[in-house]
Amino acid sequence: MKKILRVNMTDRSYKFEDVPEAYRTLGGRGLTSTIVYDEVTPTVNPLGPYNKLVFAPGIVTGTAASTSGRISAGAKSPLTGGIKESNAGSQFPQDLARMGLHAIIVEGYPQDDKYWIMYVKWDKAAGMPKIDFLPADAYVGRGLYDVFPELFEQFGEKVSIAGTGMAGERRYLNSGIVYNDIDGRPSRYSGRGGLGAVMASKGLKFIVTDRAGSPAVPLADKAIFEEGRKKLVDALRSHPITKPGGGLNTLGTAVLVNIINEAGGFPTRNFREGQFEGAANISGEMMAQYVKERGGGRMGHPCHPGCIIQCSNIIPKEDGSELVSVIEYETTWAFGANCGIDSLDVIGELTRMTNDFGMDTIEMGGTIAVAMEAGLAKFGDGKRAIELMEEVGKGTPLGRLLGNGATLAGKALGVIRVPSVKGQNMPAYEPRAIKGIGVTYATSPMGADHTAGYTIAPENLSSGGQSDPLSVEGKADLSRAFQEATAFIDSTGHCLFIAFAILDIPSGFEGVMQECNGVLGTNWTTDDATKYGIEVLKKERAFNFGAGLSEKDDRLPEFMSYEKLPPHNVTFDIPDEELDSVFGKM
Amino acid sequence: MKKILRVNMTDRSYKFEDVPEAYRTLGGRGLTSTIVYDEVTPTVNPLGPYNKLVFAPGIVTGTAASTSGRISAGAKSPLTGGIKESNAGSQFPQDLARMGLHAIIVEGYPQDDKYWIMYVKWDKAAGMPKIDFLPADAYVGRGLYDVFPELFEQFGEKVSIAGTGMAGERRYLNSGIVYNDIDGRPSRYSGRGGLGAVMASKGLKFIVTDRAGSPAVPLADKAIFEEGRKKLVDALRSHPITKPGGGLNTLGTAVLVNIINEAGGFPTRNFREGQFEGAANISGEMMAQYVKERGGGRMGHPCHPGCIIQCSNIIPKEDGSELVSVIEYETTWAFGANCGIDSLDVIGELTRMTNDFGMDTIEMGGTIAVAMEAGLAKFGDGKRAIELMEEVGKGTPLGRLLGNGATLAGKALGVIRVPSVKGQNMPAYEPRAIKGIGVTYATSPMGADHTAGYTIAPENLSSGGQSDPLSVEGKADLSRAFQEATAFIDSTGHCLFIAFAILDIPSGFEGVMQECNGVLGTNWTTDDATKYGIEVLKKERAFNFGAGLSEKDDRLPEFMSYEKLPPHNVTFDIPDEELDSVFGKM
Repeated sequence: MKKILRVNMTDRSYKFEDVPEAYRTLGGRGLTSTIVYDEVTPTVNPLGPYNKLVFAPGIVTGTAASTSGRISAGAKSPLTGGIKESNAGSQFPQDLARMGLHAIIVEGYPQDDKYWIMYVKWDKAAGMPKIDFLPADAYVGRGLYDVFPELFEQFGEKVSIAGTGMAGERRYLNSGIVYNDIDGRPSRYSGRGGLGAVMASKGLKFIVTDRAGSPAVPLADKAIFEEGRKKLVDALRSHPITKPGGGLNTLGTAVLVNIINEAGGFPTRNFREGQFEGAANISGEMMAQYVKERGGGRMGHPCHPGCIIQCSNIIPKEDGSELVSVIEYETTWAFGANCGIDSLDVIGELTRMTNDFGMDTIEMGGTIAVAMEAGLAKFGDGKRAIELMEEVGKGTPLGRLLGNGATLAGKALGVIRVPSVKGQNMPAYEPRAIKGIGVTYATSPMGADHTAGYTIAPENLSSGGQSDPLSVEGKADLSRAFQEATAFIDSTGHCLFIAFAILDIPSGFEGVMQECNGVLGTNWTTDDATKYGIEVLKKERAFNFGAGLSEKDDRLPEFMSYEKLPPHNVTFDIPDEELDSVFGKM
Repeated sequence: MKKILRVNMTDRSYKFEDVPEAYRTLGGRGLTSTIVYDEVTPTVNPLGPYNKLVFAPGIVTGTAASTSGRISAGAKSPLTGGIKESNAGSQFPQDLARMGLHAIIVEGYPQDDKYWIMYVKWDKAAGMPKIDFLPADAYVGRGLYDVFPELFEQFGEKVSIAGTGMAGERRYLNSGIVYNDIDGRPSRYSGRGGLGAVMASKGLKFIVTDRAGSPAVPLADKAIFEEGRKKLVDALRSHPITKPGGGLNTLGTAVLVNIINEAGGFPTRNFREGQFEGAANISGEMMAQYVKERGGGRMGHPCHPGCIIQCSNIIPKEDGSELVSVIEYETTWAFGANCGIDSLDVIGELTRMTNDFGMDTIEMGGTIAVAMEAGLAKFGDGKRAIELMEEVGKGTPLGRLLGNGATLAGKALGVIRVPSVKGQNMPAYEPRAIKGIGVTYATSPMGADHTAGYTIAPENLSSGGQSDPLSVEGKADLSRAFQEATAFIDSTGHCLFIAFAILDIPSGFEGVMQECNGVLGTNWTTDDATKYGIEVLKKERAFNFGAGLSEKDDRLPEFMSYEKLPPHNVTFDIPDEELDSVFGKM
């Protein structure tokens, strides 16, 4: 019988609660957003006593379903002031699911500055997890690359870790929740939205899970599940983007660098241009070349056990030793093109530091770009960028100014060219040159977030349809459809990248629904996916409205309306009414 | 014939426009808020090309009406994100009125970083002002105490100055618009809301006015005006708070220190307590003692020619040389009790620095208090507070972190006890112990602002009625009535301090209406004051709603709802519905 683990960090008490019927078919984002909507008063201070932090594995997470090791972390975001679901791939949610934990709700507020580790270990005799709280003092104020090996030493090599780094301890608005990758690195992130600071504000430094001896996740209908699983696997294995040896597997997510740069939608030097002259040097092709020539690295590294796509990587230094894992497309762009830097070695070092401190690379790169715009460094000056990151790690005033994200840095530095929505910096797609993604940035309840409605698929990748990126036509409908589908996928526990396969291959989509039916005993068809997504988005938007956000926040920054982006020399010209038509006014 | 001077800083073009009939009876706040409402799209970036900065003298400013030398500066505020009217007393608006300028509207956006002086000189032959633009390069990056004497040297001793300091040049969200006092000091401020940054964003460094030779402000009905003028003078001269030799005149606004401290409503150490053990040392009584014992200073100094109340002061150093003018109640509190500092000499030095950089003392003191809360200095450490101010002046990262106000500093430093509303730090009255002012802080379109609806009068000073400060009863009605009356008074050009006299002495109130009728040819009665105020507030709230603010922003910070304030051990317990009943939901 699945349980919800509710932890009160005021006194470190906890209880296992039955899963309410209304929550039974919810998982991942659907569950975290529903619990936040149901339990958190939208106007609370995100770092105060009344916010709650929720972890939930997806519906099929922990089963044999391929590519489904995704965790949703949810709370009111200190970065956006709205609801946040921040999604990552790791073994951690698989552990939760295996131990029967439908969700963990962290609430309360400590009366002192002490940090704790919550150790969740499967108790075979009791048939449920056992909870212990251990002091985290030894791990406070330290980099995560130092800390993780010690945690594995303390708790054993097979545990999973969720945690917050120095960034969270300092309540940086840019602070993520870190998870270990399959080799124990602190490199998988619920990065966006400052949830690391929420976790730290509760006095919770790490959650360590040990599922050893736990039973398999129970299935309501094994046959249906297995049928669905196979259909999805077949789809993933046959789609050119997701298949083994396909684009993502061989070049990682940075396969996109040359594609998006070619399209003129690769934001360069704080969104001043849409093409970067150094793109080839920071591309997935260059990463693969490094791995091949330098040795010691790896393309096609999975973020969690059971992934077919395997789009992560380990990038080697010149001498073959490890530089960092992983450099995603977003990351190579954020520290690369957006800062005018064309060296993967510099980007790798900046990535490693960001992981070490416990932060989001997109927001961090965007902040350095804003600092460059303000004259704190020249665009392209990698050495100075690393120095700025060192300040962030030390927590100096300059570091605090940069550790709290691009929006705060822009205000503090007097920069009005800050490409953020709802306080969250834009990812690696220029909305002036790829207008559908601009609609997603503007209207997603999450703030500027490409993963919330990835219209890049039809706009640039001929997947899930075709749409001219430079055209304004139909972009509200396009974004809405992708946002709805995404809210469902984020609830299943599947990686969003299955979208390519299931949008293009109908049997793959059926397979996902059958997997869910197999786990839940439901009779969902593909139509139910959209309905499910709509319900999730409704709650998220209702929360945001209650928090004081309105359609006025569903807008791109003003400068994009009057500053023409080369090479297409276009502004963002989707009318406000079109943006409001995505979901209607709040 | 009155004109509106419209200046486009894109190319420094300008034109004199006829005053639209709808603007004819508007002045001061009523006029700035109406123009901002009519002309500025509420969602614009406050520091971007589409914001406008408006200056307007009050209805009776420039006439012989007593205590009426007030200027309203209006714009969308970069600090609050809403509309802002920021009010100061100086000769500047008297110059504008004498030269027939109903308002100055500054719009456009420079294409470079150059700053300009707009020189507005009465041209007797033409019967209108002549406009020249002169480079301000020589005055950029310098303290205002250095710059002002040079400006008077360049333009003559009798000119008036409005300008922005280094804070504005750096786009600090805490940057005011400075005006000279009667002796030429850079000490009169439209301090609140960051309007200095708006002015600087337009490339406008100073407006210098020379009204020499200009005619008297024309009156529609001299007899009525004169009758009204005398009634108001009589009221001001007889009310114990405003009369010569009365509380404000002999002890300055800091007469309030002991009164509010006694009431337990004197925010101490970043609003942790309601009484300060060092209150007597920073009181008006102590200032008067300094003036008497040290020599060289002055109590009862007027902020503009023609003031009867004369509540300003010049505080001497130990050797009798000038420390600073003026230390207001708000200022002695902001740098004093709120930072735990009980030395007037330190407070005076901090005040002088804040004036020098071009900032608001309330926001600056509140920011230092937040920095102290974060551990950057110990409460009470005046030496360290001065060092922090030096950083602000230098524009170091730490200085930028502190120069952008308490809300930004709180986010950057991870402090959740930030006593702000709509991003603006609270003034010197604790809303938990004086609940009516809390309603004003919460609901004023201006953010936390005591001058927007000064319920302190009935709650602590037995003026304008009587209301128990600790009681929640009737506070919505009380605040609404004061906010409405204030919006009218702020439009007349009179100092808000006439409120004591006109609320307690009916003939004084009649006198104000007669003054307005005498200037405008209207037939207003005292009932019209409220109607006028309501119209102003409606526009301000409509602008804010258009900017994305809602009733969710009409709230005090969360910590005041759960943290009990000594000595009364009270929280802020006015229900949200009561707050929403002040003006209704947006």
